[in-house]
This record gives sequence, C-alpha cells and structure tokens, in this order.
Amino acid sequence: MGRLVARYGATAVVEAIRARALPVEFVAQEERPGALTARLNAWYARLAAANPIADLEAGERSGARLIVPGGPEWPTQLDQLGPSRPLGLWLRGTADLRFSCLKSVAVVGARSATAYGVHIAAEFGVGLSESGWTVVSGGAFGVDGAAHRGALVADSPTVVVLACGVDVCYPTSHDTLFAAVRDQGVVVSECPPGVHPTRARFLIRNRLIAALSRGTVVVEAALRSGALNTAAHTLTLNRHLAAVPGPVTSRMSAGCHRLLRERKAVCVTSPEEMIELVGVIGDDLAPQTRAPAVPRDKLNESTRRVLDAIPTRGGAGPASIAVAAGLGLDATLSALGGLAAAGYIERSPDGWRVRKLGTTYRKASEAAVLEPRMAEDADPTQEPPFPDEDDLARHEDGLPAPEESSQGREHDGWKEKGTELLAFEYP
Amino acid sequence: MGRLVARYGATAVVEAIRARALPVEFVAQEERPGALTARLNAWYARLAAANPIADLEAGERSGARLIVPGGPEWPTQLDQLGPSRPLGLWLRGTADLRFSCLKSVAVVGARSATAYGVHIAAEFGVGLSESGWTVVSGGAFGVDGAAHRGALVADSPTVVVLACGVDVCYPTSHDTLFAAVRDQGVVVSECPPGVHPTRARFLIRNRLIAALSRGTVVVEAALRSGALNTAAHTLTLNRHLAAVPGPVTSRMSAGCHRLLRERKAVCVTSPEEMIELVGVIGDDLAPQTRAPAVPRDKLNESTRRVLDAIPTRGGAGPASIAVAAGLGLDATLSALGGLAAAGYIERSPDGWRVRKLGTTYRKASEAAVLEPRMAEDADPTQEPPFPDEDDLARHEDGLPAPEESSQGREHDGWKEKGTELLAFEYP
Repeated sequence: MGRLVARYGATAVVEAIRARALPVEFVAQEERPGALTARLNAWYARLAAANPIADLEAGERSGARLIVPGGPEWPTQLDQLGPSRPLGLWLRGTADLRFSCLKSVAVVGARSATAYGVHIAAEFGVGLSESGWTVVSGGAFGVDGAAHRGALVADSPTVVVLACGVDVCYPTSHDTLFAAVRDQGVVVSECPPGVHPTRARFLIRNRLIAALSRGTVVVEAALRSGALNTAAHTLTLNRHLAAVPGPVTSRMSAGCHRLLRERKAVCVTSPEEMIELVGVIGDDLAPQTRAPAVPRDKLNESTRRVLDAIPTRGGAGPASIAVAAGLGLDATLSALGGLAAAGYIERSPDGWRVRKLGTTYRKASEAAVLEPRMAEDADPTQEPPFPDEDDLARHEDGLPAPEESSQGREHDGWKEKGTELLAFEYP
Repeated sequence: MGRLVARYGATAVVEAIRARALPVEFVAQEERPGALTARLNAWYARLAAANPIADLEAGERSGARLIVPGGPEWPTQLDQLGPSRPLGLWLRGTADLRFSCLKSVAVVGARSATAYGVHIAAEFGVGLSESGWTVVSGGAFGVDGAAHRGALVADSPTVVVLACGVDVCYPTSHDTLFAAVRDQGVVVSECPPGVHPTRARFLIRNRLIAALSRGTVVVEAALRSGALNTAAHTLTLNRHLAAVPGPVTSRMSAGCHRLLRERKAVCVTSPEEMIELVGVIGDDLAPQTRAPAVPRDKLNESTRRVLDAIPTRGGAGPASIAVAAGLGLDATLSALGGLAAAGYIERSPDGWRVRKLGTTYRKASEAAVLEPRMAEDADPTQEPPFPDEDDLARHEDGLPAPEESSQGREHDGWKEKGTELLAFEYP
C-alpha cells in the first residue's frame, strides 16, 4: 500500500481499489502477484467498510486534527519509514508535533515495570524534559506512563502515541494522564477516531514511536516485550538505541541486558548519558562519571610512595620505609615529617605507622598542613579509593568486618562502637 | 628489573646490584639512565635488607612452596606479562596452580559490596566451579570472599592471590576462609612470607589476578575501585573483560556500567554467559536467554491474524473481523470456529470478542483443541508476550492496574479478587 501511494498518490489508489484493478506495471514489478490479489480483495472489503466523512466528523467532535505528509505539522523524520510511512496522523493536544519532536527521545519499557523501572522512567522523563528533550512513548501502564508523568512534572510537552483512536482512552484509567498530555503535549494515532486497540495495532504503532525520535531508551523489558519490538524498529531506522541496566536477578531487565550483551544498545544510566548519545557531538556531553577526589590525590609522588610504604600494623623505621618506597633516606625523612604533621601517620613503639581511623579525623582537621587522609575515606557512603587500603584502616580499629555480619556495608558496626566514628552520620 | 632478569638471569642481576654496577650496554639502551641510577640505589638498599634464607625457612615452616618460571607448577600464561612477570610465586595449598588455572576466571569487585554484589559473586563462584572453571580472586571482603565461598561450596579448587605473604592472614577474620582454600585450592603471593600488605602491593597483585585467568568479570565496582585496576590489566593483556550490570541507582555498580558504556566490557548476567565468553567457541555456548513459548505461538498465521482482529471490548461480526484481519470470509469463519473451540474467544451480544481472563483457564484446559491462550499469559511471574495485549485482558476483568497501586506487578490485586485466578500461586 505504501509503495502504491508513493507511486500513484492516495486518490488514484483509492480509485484503483474501488475498481478492484491495480495498475498493470505495478503488479508486474511485485514479487508475489498472487499475494497482491488477496491483498487487493482485503483492501476492497476494508474500503467498503470505511467511512472517512464520519471519521472526520468524529475527529472534529473530539477536537482532533488530521495531518498528512507535506503539511506544516508533519514530522519529516517519519519519511525514513519509506513505504511504511503512515498516510496520516490524528493529533489531539496543544503541542505542535513537528516542533515537539525536533529533539525527542523515545522512552519505552515494560508495562508491568518494577518499582525500579517506574522510578527510572520518571527520572528520564524529568531529566530529558528539563534539558529540552521531548519524551515520546506509548500510553501504557508502567514505563510509558511514568515517563510521561516525569515530562509533565517538568512542564514540558510530551508525545503519547496510541494504538487506538485519539478519542479512545486506553487504558481507561489513564484518562487524567491523557487529559494532562492533551493540555501540555499531544496525543498521536494513526488510527481514525473510535478505533479500539488490537495486538497488531500495538506492533504497528511501535514503528512510529521509534521513527518520531532521535533515539530510543529501553528502561525495563523482559525477554519477550513490546519494547524490544520498538528497539528493533529503532535499529532498522539506524537511530540510537540505549538500554538501562538493572539487577541481573530481575527478569524485567533481562531484555535490556540482552540488548547490551549483543551490543545492540548502548548502556545508559542517566538522562544526561542519553542526551549525549542523541545530542550534538561535543555540545551535549554527559558529565564524566567520576568519583570524588580524595585528599591523598594531592600528595606528590614521592610522599605518596612513602605513605604507601608505611605499614598499618606494627611500625617501621625510616631506613626500612626508604627501602620499601624505593627512595633515598633524605627524601623519605622529609616526606615522613610532612605526613606526620598532616596526621596521616604517627609514631608507635615500633616506628612509624599509618594513623588509626578514629583519632585521625578530629586532630587532622586542626593540623592540616596537608589535608588529613582518613576523613573522606572513612565516609561510609563512599567507596574508598582503593578498597583494600580501607580494609587495612578498618582492621586496625578492630572494627567488625562488614562481611562477618553478612549484611554488607550497612552494618559495619561503626555505630555500635561508641568511638569518635560516630561523627559520621549514616545517610 | 624484569628486563634485566630476562636478559642476564636473576643470579647475574643480584651480583650486579650488589656491585652497584649494571651492564653498560643495558644502561645505554634505557631511555632515562638517570632514573636507573636512583633505581639501582633503591635495589641495593633492598638487597641489603633482604634475607632469602630466612624467607625460605619461614616458607617451609608455614608449609609454603616457591615456584619459579620454567617449573612444573608455573602457569605459563604469566609469561604474557613480559618484563613484569613475577620472578617467583609463593604457594600454600593442595591444588596445583598451573592445572587449576588452565580454565580459570577472575571474579573481582568491591570489598564493600552490596548484598546484591555478594549474592552475584557467590552465584558466579558456584556456577563457574560446577562447570569446571576455577575462580581466581583476591582475599578481600565482599566480592572476593563470596566468589571463593561459592567455589568451595561447589567442592572446587579456588585461587586466592594475596598482596601479603602467604603466611599472613589479611584480613584476619578471613582465617577460616583461607584455611579452607588451602585445603581445597591454593593461596598465592608474590611477596615472601611475613610481608604485610601495602597499597602498592595490592595494585601490583592485581596484574597477577588478571594474568592467571582467561578473563575477568567485575561483579560490583564503584567508579574508583581496585577492581577497575584489575579490569585495566585484563584489557592490557587482551583477555576477556566482562561486567555484571546492576541497578543504576547503586553507586557500587557505577564502575561496571562505565565499563559497559565505554564498551570495554561485555555485559554478562550469569556464569554461563561468562563461560561462553572465555570458553571454547561453539563448545561453551550459554543457553539462549529466551522467554517461554506461549500457546498463541502455536496458532497458524491466518488464525493469529483473526485472533488479533477480534476486539477485546464489545464484539465484532465475522465480516468486520475478516476486514480487519485482511482475510477472506471463509478463512475467517474457519479460524473463528477453532478459536472458539479452544476457548480463545467467545460470543457476546455484539459479536465475537476475546475471552475474559478468569473464566478461560478452567474451561479451556478441558476443551483444548488448540491450547488455551490465557493460561501462561496470566502467570504473574511472566512478562506477557506482548504487554499491551495483557493490559487489554486485565482491563476487561476490571482488575486494578498495577500502576494505580503504585507498587508494580507485585500488587496486581489478583489475589484479592477471589476469582479462579487464585489457581496461580505466587512464587
């Protein structure tokens, strides 16, 4: 049908179907002319059942408008669909579809999303909208709805592409959501008013979600999910495909993980990373994910080597520290002085050792020629720069190991110790 | 040092350091001869402090053995480290290191792992071991320990690579774990007995974990984590690098996600997928992640099209169904008969409609010319094949929408309905 309309125009094709006679040269070029006859019969029956005047009247009654290719509101990116470009779209809502979709991202995923998926979808809805990107999605429960709600919260237009008429509210309980979208964004459908959704219409609809957007992000999807159908359309259109990872224990993330594993999708963990993917190269770079710097970073190379050479148990004299650090004795002595002044190390009966966690924090914040070392390392909400080192420090304190409590880091036992570590509050 | 030993042999190099005079032609080839002098001085001091006889005696006392390149237990894959290949390794344990590491995977990750990370690490430990793959890891809390425990549970050897002497128990509370590893696997260190861990030794140690294994999987890692150091060594060695995704809301998975995002690591969600990565091509394929087939899959093409064309609200006559399905009336009537007999559809006052969820299950299992359609779709633990369709079915039942309860799929309200749906038990 798409090929016919592209070649002869919609009016001529309607006449041909009504006459039950397709242009001979077209039929000759088709690979399976027999299948075409069956199609023609089906189109003929469908045309007989169609009532375009009634459709237009119903559209007008519900405040819908019909746009066609070439019109001012037509999103030209749909042309990439080739023969499967829709013949027209029904719209309901205040936003201009073409303008809204100039910078748009499809946020798709499972209807039966987990709390995690709903949370992430809403975060993407808010984040994309606040950066000037329009959310495009279906109207289903779960990821679709959450993404639209995020966009609405951010006072941005959002685009709902339905698999039923724009005057049909499916699912019914999304009536207030769709009303809000009509106020602030636009509801789109290829189906004439009054048409109810069928499975086939959902699948056909998915190509529009992919084609309207610069890229698609799959927030949550089981291995068998309509969202993966949208993802496939995205790849067919050579648009950007992204997937949000989740726990491997969640079957609702299995579809995302398969896309990542097969390298079909890029791993994105935030709206910023999605925008970097679909945005202008250089302009829309996501902030580098980077751990906070720790005071130790500011030490110079030789001081750091001396610090690393100092034992955390017992103690060591300057000569053996110099050997371990691979430095001369003078350089070592100088570094030891600085480290001691800054509270990184202390003298013990056996020589120099790394200072204990609890006592360092307070004193160091007063001394601070160099900044104290343990302050940030000890923050229980932070992964220490080098895990094993923190192990050392913690062990020195005789604190129970997180693993022994078999409840992970939440249960380091620091609160129970009654030491100065109580200065660190759990979030 | 590695270049020196490779060229002149260990004995000659010891003599040269003792004489404080390196071979002239070697010095001439080095890029920075000045730096070499400083190194030589540091080596000289270190050699003076070394006591190899005492080391060997201490090793013997603790039941450790020393292996060197060329020996029968030397894992030749370490040769890929080039100049940074260790000069020797101290071992303690019953397992043969070379044999154990023929098929081995490094399982690394955060010390302060979350409950999720610990769970996954243990799953990988068990799964790899049960398939004949040896786990290689450090001896730290969190991911390291969990991976070894998983391997031990599976009665397999496991390889702990320490950053201290093999007779030093660090962290101390891992003493029973390390004892079990010595019984069943092997504890490895480059450091002589009695040496305590320092930050530098952990970083140096990481190259051994990467070099002993065919590939490395990062289970959990913050953006700044020692596990990422091991990952970098893995890439340098051109071994396989994998990362396990996790919730994007968890900072303990941020390092894994960055590796995936930068396409440095392959996304793996199970031990099987890891084995596929490091195993023999073709022999070790992971089972395809695939959702279970649903009864609908068994319908032929035209029957499926008829089913898709039948509305879920109201009803439709055969003629309009034929139009919607794009099929002839005869074919449509025949498909309708089969679908009705199998319990997929039913007559309503308005014509044919898709059968409701609750009542279909029982009757269909008796009729079953074709298998009933809703049985598996309704399984609350399964993502339905096409989410939106299940929406339709659920809506027809007037069941509350998962999103409205804002608690996701766990709370579909099916249990509360007192309908036949109670036949499905929650897992």
